[in-house]
Order: sequence, then structure tokens, then C-alpha cells
Amino acid sequence: MADPHFFSVADPFSLGEIARIGGGTLGPGADPARLVRDVAPLETASFDDISFLDNRKYIPAFTASRAGACLVQPALAERAPPSMALVLTDEPYRAYALIAQAFYPDPVPSGVIDPRAVVDPSARIGVGTEVAAGVVIGPRVEIGRRCTIAALAVIDPGVVIGDDCTVGAHVSLSHCLIGHRVVIYPGARLGQDGFGFALSRDGYTKVPQLGRVIVGDDVEIGANTTIDRGAGPDTIIGPGCRIDNLVQIGHNVHLGRGCVVVAQVGISGSTRVGDFAMMGGQAGLIGHLSIGDGARIGAQAGIIRDVAAGETVVGSPALPAREYWRQRVVLEHMARRDKAREPEK
Amino acid sequence: MADPHFFSVADPFSLGEIARIGGGTLGPGADPARLVRDVAPLETASFDDISFLDNRKYIPAFTASRAGACLVQPALAERAPPSMALVLTDEPYRAYALIAQAFYPDPVPSGVIDPRAVVDPSARIGVGTEVAAGVVIGPRVEIGRRCTIAALAVIDPGVVIGDDCTVGAHVSLSHCLIGHRVVIYPGARLGQDGFGFALSRDGYTKVPQLGRVIVGDDVEIGANTTIDRGAGPDTIIGPGCRIDNLVQIGHNVHLGRGCVVVAQVGISGSTRVGDFAMMGGQAGLIGHLSIGDGARIGAQAGIIRDVAAGETVVGSPALPAREYWRQRVVLEHMARRDKAREPEK
Amino acid sequence: MADPHFFSVADPFSLGEIARIGGGTLGPGADPARLVRDVAPLETASFDDISFLDNRKYIPAFTASRAGACLVQPALAERAPPSMALVLTDEPYRAYALIAQAFYPDPVPSGVIDPRAVVDPSARIGVGTEVAAGVVIGPRVEIGRRCTIAALAVIDPGVVIGDDCTVGAHVSLSHCLIGHRVVIYPGARLGQDGFGFALSRDGYTKVPQLGRVIVGDDVEIGANTTIDRGAGPDTIIGPGCRIDNLVQIGHNVHLGRGCVVVAQVGISGSTRVGDFAMMGGQAGLIGHLSIGDGARIGAQAGIIRDVAAGETVVGSPALPAREYWRQRVVLEHMARRDKAREPEK
Repeated sequence: MADPHFFSVADPFSLGEIARIGGGTLGPGADPARLVRDVAPLETASFDDISFLDNRKYIPAFTASRAGACLVQPALAERAPPSMALVLTDEPYRAYALIAQAFYPDPVPSGVIDPRAVVDPSARIGVGTEVAAGVVIGPRVEIGRRCTIAALAVIDPGVVIGDDCTVGAHVSLSHCLIGHRVVIYPGARLGQDGFGFALSRDGYTKVPQLGRVIVGDDVEIGANTTIDRGAGPDTIIGPGCRIDNLVQIGHNVHLGRGCVVVAQVGISGSTRVGDFAMMGGQAGLIGHLSIGDGARIGAQAGIIRDVAAGETVVGSPALPAREYWRQRVVLEHMARRDKAREPEK
Repeated sequence: MADPHFFSVADPFSLGEIARIGGGTLGPGADPARLVRDVAPLETASFDDISFLDNRKYIPAFTASRAGACLVQPALAERAPPSMALVLTDEPYRAYALIAQAFYPDPVPSGVIDPRAVVDPSARIGVGTEVAAGVVIGPRVEIGRRCTIAALAVIDPGVVIGDDCTVGAHVSLSHCLIGHRVVIYPGARLGQDGFGFALSRDGYTKVPQLGRVIVGDDVEIGANTTIDRGAGPDTIIGPGCRIDNLVQIGHNVHLGRGCVVVAQVGISGSTRVGDFAMMGGQAGLIGHLSIGDGARIGAQAGIIRDVAAGETVVGSPALPAREYWRQRVVLEHMARRDKAREPEK
Repeated sequence: MADPHFFSVADPFSLGEIARIGGGTLGPGADPARLVRDVAPLETASFDDISFLDNRKYIPAFTASRAGACLVQPALAERAPPSMALVLTDEPYRAYALIAQAFYPDPVPSGVIDPRAVVDPSARIGVGTEVAAGVVIGPRVEIGRRCTIAALAVIDPGVVIGDDCTVGAHVSLSHCLIGHRVVIYPGARLGQDGFGFALSRDGYTKVPQLGRVIVGDDVEIGANTTIDRGAGPDTIIGPGCRIDNLVQIGHNVHLGRGCVVVAQVGISGSTRVGDFAMMGGQAGLIGHLSIGDGARIGAQAGIIRDVAAGETVVGSPALPAREYWRQRVVLEHMARRDKAREPEK
């Protein structure tokens, strides 16, 4: 059970309601009227909880679990302990997500602007939006309805934010236009100058950064992530993108829809990424590249050439995954042969 | 045109003035009296704008551009569309930078200390310096003239900052001496304790960090970058260094003049870097190394040995670039041969 | 001598006291009554200072040093200049740390809650704890005794902090329980939502993150580091862990006791790390792994498989160190042979 110090759980749901919320069907013998009081991990769930099995690695935990109910793919149902009620679904993790949302709905913004926030009189703030203590909001800022602006966020002049957004503690926003239902985690920095200077015999000359950051609807931006504004064109984060913590996105980068960018990735200036591309943790992309729709870039990969749509690349510098692994195997064989030739020490 | 919501453009310049500001010469047939109203990227520039061509990758965009004027190297002038007025220069990007600065000059600090800032009475703040709401300035801090201290920055006791500096939102500064014309982007952390502890049979013993961070003139430090103070010696950032976002610089590191440190680089304690060295994104350097003047370190490179002046190294662990690429090619050949030997599946 | 602008030094100690504090013994001829006034690096130490030699790289500096006294291992004593008083110890760096702590004790918290902090009336703050200007403390927060909460930290509802902790400027804490003697450096983010969403045909579904961050006693957490709260289980940082700057720790990660995590490491969700494991800078670990006690993970290593207790792994993807270096050597030989076969150009 989630710590009541931090979370409050909704009233119980019947197993029938649970199946409906999660989009699954009850397994054989499951009683639709049975009450479910909470969600919980397999290891700690008890008789009143519903859990889920999504990763085959956790089948033993599933088999040993005391959860009263569990979300599971039909093919794995037979591994359940006998007393467990099953809710069958092809997407147990998604079903779990929906059910957990029902048990733990997002808090509703208070709609109160804390008197200790500093709000420029020319800023417009929508109905239902909560602005916490210590927030600093500049001239001509526009914030939509039902947003939460957490403590000590800074929103610079002219920034526009849509409805139902969350701006975390210590976030700083400048030169950006933010869509609806966007969540920005603590300490993220959007819209500062890009890393733009001209190298010449006389040293470095600063290049004014005259673009913006445009963030589409339903985007999440992780803690302490930095997104520089465009140099002339804009930096664009397409709708539905999920960006993790400590990511760096350079000026003029364009992410398509629904990209997943795992922690500590760096994307250099002017690189364009298609829709639904995935970038594993700590991957790095140099500038001015084109990455196709649905491309998959491995963790720690170093991308120095364009990547075609749907391609999977790994390594630094990156290669198509097949080729990369072939090279690794060849090298391993040679090292083994070399070792065999050595006299024993 | 830059979004007037965020930027305001200066009055037009004549093409003759533009050429003078950028340090170029007018191409054949260009009218020096013609008015230029703005800068713009090749793709979106119109008849009143000046653009630039700096990367051969964008020659097609140059040829197709509707920009009324363009900065270009003489050798590429023939690729221009017929109606475009040219300004010829060996350094088009630098010329663009200077012209863009003329159209979009930096805002002048207001010289006002916001009454909602918390400024210790013993702090000294120079004429013309602007201190935003929510800033916290400790005892004995000295700030020069015409600086901008953005909202919610924290400047700890004794910190000294020169003239014409910008300290971004949410920056925290302690134990540091900052030169003139330094720009520190939002969320950067300077002067906290280095990662200093002694390992021993009895566990870890904290080592007091008794040095400072010394930042030279004309340095830029990126968003959410961290620079630890020295352990006894100082951490030193030489004049003119350009440091990108999310960079980690350990205690006692010494960067020479004009180094370029791209995003997410990490430099471990006590490493010395010469003048004008360049470090690509996500490169990592272990501690106690010596990196020569003008060394070039590739993106994601892992530096575990000294690098000579002027040397280019890539890979992890890094090798001289020639050697590294030779090894890659050899491995690729072997993998291909190996594949050819395989029976088809 | 540490800059008196930032540090104040305690009264002198006799060399006898110094040896006792550092746990060493006086070398032949050293006068126990001699006064030592400060600590200093070998290069800049003078007659009144004590320095230390810990890294063989600095033997020349030791031999050339003007330090009046020095901590050194017995085996290196003969390299000392003739006039230097020696304090012999097997652990000179630890001894230095203890002596430096004596000369520069941590400042004692003032015990004052700044009236410009925003403290919810339901929060409980222990005796002797200092709360700086601009701090925002939410409902039901509990903070122990003798803590320092630096300017503009944000502590969200329900967070619990033990005694003798330091929370740096601009830190944000939510959904976490913090032990005693924990130091959190500026800009660190603890307890925000993990990167949790279910991928499905219909896009991404947010998974509520219902766990906490539990931080053991004597932990240090670096500047701008991010630690996400658990998704259901907790994220756990064991007692005595030392975490550097810009580290990312995902939801449900469990670090054992005394782990050392160098800057810019990323640890993905649900990975378990044993006691006293070490992770070099920029290493990355995928999720759901098990890393044994005392494992050593090289800088920039990419960990995609479990690592056994005591094992040393390097490379990306990582291999046991011996195997990794063998492969490197084999590849190097082949590239050299290949070069020898080439006709000269």
C-alpha cells in the first residue's frame, strides 16, 4: 500500500469495475463483486490488492505472490497461484497504469495564487490554476486553466502555457510556448540561449539565439533536463514526447511525435528526429542529422550519421545492431584464439 | 523574423552598413543603399532579410532561398539565386553573429534591485546592476556594474562578481570569484564541495574542500552545469571558455583559455587542460591528467591518459584518431569476411 | 592557506596533537611541540603548514615542497626534503582529512528560521535547525535537529529529514524519508515521478508512481543529481553512499551500503546494487539488473547484464576487465599488422 503519509487511496472498486477500467476480462472463477482495495507490487501485495505481471523475469514472484488479484497475459495465466483472481489482458502494464490512476487520481489544483508568488500584473492566469509560494511570473505570461505551478518556478516574459499543465519546483521557462497537459519536472530549464558562437581567428563571437522552444501537447520533460531555444528556427518537441531526467536538447532540434528520450541523452543542434523514435539512456547524437520515424537508438550509442526510419542502431559510433553484434562476436573469437595460443603462465 | 512576443528588432540597416558591421564586402551588383530589416534562416528568409550560408549541407537551401541578402564565402557565391544580394566574407557565421547582435542587442539591465530580493546589508552591488525578485545575496558579496542577476539566484557569502555579468535564474554560487562579462545560465552550480573523501578500512572520511572556483573574463557556463570548488588548490576556468549544459567539472580542474566544452562532458578532479582545447559532447576525462593546448577530444571519448598539444583523440578509451579509425576498419573487414564464410541461412 | 574571504581557520595545533588527530606517528626527529597553523597542498605549503602525499604521481612535488610537516606512508619517507617534519601513517589522505576537519570545522547551524522562509504551520522543525530565506516547507514536513536548510530549497508535504542534515540551495525534495547526517548538494532533485509509462497501441499511459525515496544515514548526494521515487516499491539509497553530481537514479533502484557513484552515472529502474559497489563516471546501467557487493564498474561502462560480487567490468557493453583488455590488444595488433602490409603512400 502506498505510504498514506504521501498518497491517499480512493474507495475500493469491485473486480468487475477493475476489469472494465483496465480493459481486461475476468479469468475463470474470478468473482466480479469481490472488492479490490489497492494496487501493489507482486512481492508485497496482499489479499485485498491487485498486482500485475509484465516482465517474464518476475514469473517466480508472480507464482509466489499473495496478491488477491493480478493482471496477466492469458498465456501466463497458468503460472498463477491457485487462489489468485486473474484479470486477463494483452497489456497488463497499461491496465495496471489505468487502475492505479483510478486508485490514486492526480490531485486537483487548488486554483489559488499564493500571495507570496511574484506575478506581474500583465500576466494572465486561467481559472483553476494554482500558483505556489515563491513563483516568479513575468510580464505578458499566459497560463491556461487548471495548471499547477509549483514553488519557486520562474516563468519569464511572454511565455505561454496551455491548460492542465504541471510546472515543477525550480523549473525555469523562457522564450517558450507550451501545449496542453504538459508535465515539466523539477529543475528543468527551457528556452535559455543555445550553445551558439562563431569560431574565428579573433576568438568566439556570440550568436544571438532568436528562436523559441515549442512544446506540443501531452509532453513530459524530466528533472534537470535542459532544452535550449532555437537560434533562428525553433526548437520543437512534438506532441506526446516522453523525455527523462538530465537530457540535453540543443538549439533547433526537432523531435517528432511520441519520441522516448531516456535519461542523460544528448541531442546536438539542428538534428531532426522523426515520430516515435526511441533513444536509450546516455545516447548522444551529433548535430544536423536526420533520424527516421520509429528509429531505435541503443543506450550509450554515438550517432554520427543519419538513421533510417525503423532502423535499430547500437554502439559508439553506432552501427546497425546486427553488424555491431557480429563485430563483437568476431573480436571475441579472435581474443579467445589468441589466448589459446599463449603459453600458460 | 524573431517572434516579437520575445524579441524586439532594431531599426533597419542599409546593406552597406550591414557589410561594415559584418566585416564583409558587397558582391557584384549589390546596392549599398538597400534596406535590410532583419536576419532570418535560409528557409524562411524573405526579401527584407539577410541570411547566411556556413555549412555546405545547406547549399540547396541557399540556392532555393528567398532571402534578399546573404552572407557567403566567395567560393560559393555562384550557387546563389540570381536576385539575391551577396555580402562576401571568409567567415559568414561570424559576420551573421555580428549583424544579428546589431539587430537584437542585449537588453540593458534596469539597474533596479527588486524589493523582494533578499540582499545582505554588507553586500556591495555596482551601479546599473539589476537584481530580480527572490534573489538571495549573502554577506560580503561584491557584484560589479551593469550585471543582471535573474530571479531566484542564490549568491553565497563572500562571492565576488565582475562587471557586465549575467547570472541566470536559479543559479547557485558559493566560494567563487567571477570575472567580467561572464554569463552563467539557469541552474548552474558553482563552488559546492568537490567529491572528496578518503577511503579507508573504516569507511569514508570527508575531506574539507578549502579551495575556490575562479572564473576568468568572457566565460559562458551552461544550464545545470556543475563546477565544484577546489580541495585546496582552486578550480580554475580560464578566460573565454565556453561551457555547455549539464557539464561536470571536478575539484582542482584547471581549464586554460578559450576551451570549448560541449554538453554533458565530465572532467574529473585535478585534470589540467591547456588553452583552446575542445571536448565533444559526453566525453569523459579521468582525474590528474594533462591535456595539451589545442587538443581535440571526440564526442563520447574516454580519456584515461594525457593528450598532447594539438592531438585529436576519439573512442573510449581514446586513441589518436587515425589509429582508432584504422582499428574500426580492420574489425569491419574481419566481420565481413567472417560473414562471407558463413553458409547462408 | 584557505582564502579567509570564505574560510576561517581554527587555532594552531602542536605537531603532537596533529599526529593524534590524524592517527599517525611522528617521524624521527620531529618535534611534538612544534606548532602547525594550517593545511596546504604540497606546491603551496609553507613552513607553518602540514601537507600530505597520497598519489605517487606527486612524489616530485613532495621532494620539492616547502611544507613544514607532511603526512606520508613510511615507505616514502626517504623521499622527503631534509627539513620536513614527517607524520607517518598508512592512510595519509584519511589523516589529512581528519586534520583538515580540525582546522576547518563545519559551521554550526544558527538555529534561526528566517522570517522570509515559507513554513507550513503543521511542519515540525527540530531545535538548532537553520532555515534560510526563501525556503518553502510544506505541510506535515518533519526536520530533525541541527540541520541546515539552505536558501530556496523546497521541501514538499510529508517529507521527513533526520538530524544533522544539510539541504543545499535550490534542492527539491518530495515523497522522501531522509536519514541522519545526510548532505544534499545544490539543485539535487529527490522524489519526483519516475519515468513510468506503459507503451501500447494507443500511445503512452502514465503509471502513477506510488513509492518513495528512502535515504540512509551518512549519505551524500551531489549537485543537480536526480533520484526518482519508486513506482510501487521504494527507491532506496543505503547508508554511507557517496553520490556525485549529475547522477540519474531511476525508480525502484536499490543501492546497498557505502556505494560510490561518480558523476554522470545513470542507473535505470529496478536495478539492485550490493554494498560498497563502485561506479565510475558516466557509467550506465540498464534496468532490472543485480550488481553484487563490491563490484567495480569502470568509467563509461555500459552494464547490460548482472555483475557478480567483487567483479571488475569495463567497456560498453561491459566485459570482465581482463577479457576487455585482451580484446583491445588483439585488435591493436591486427591493425598494426594490417598497416605493415599496406604499401607506403
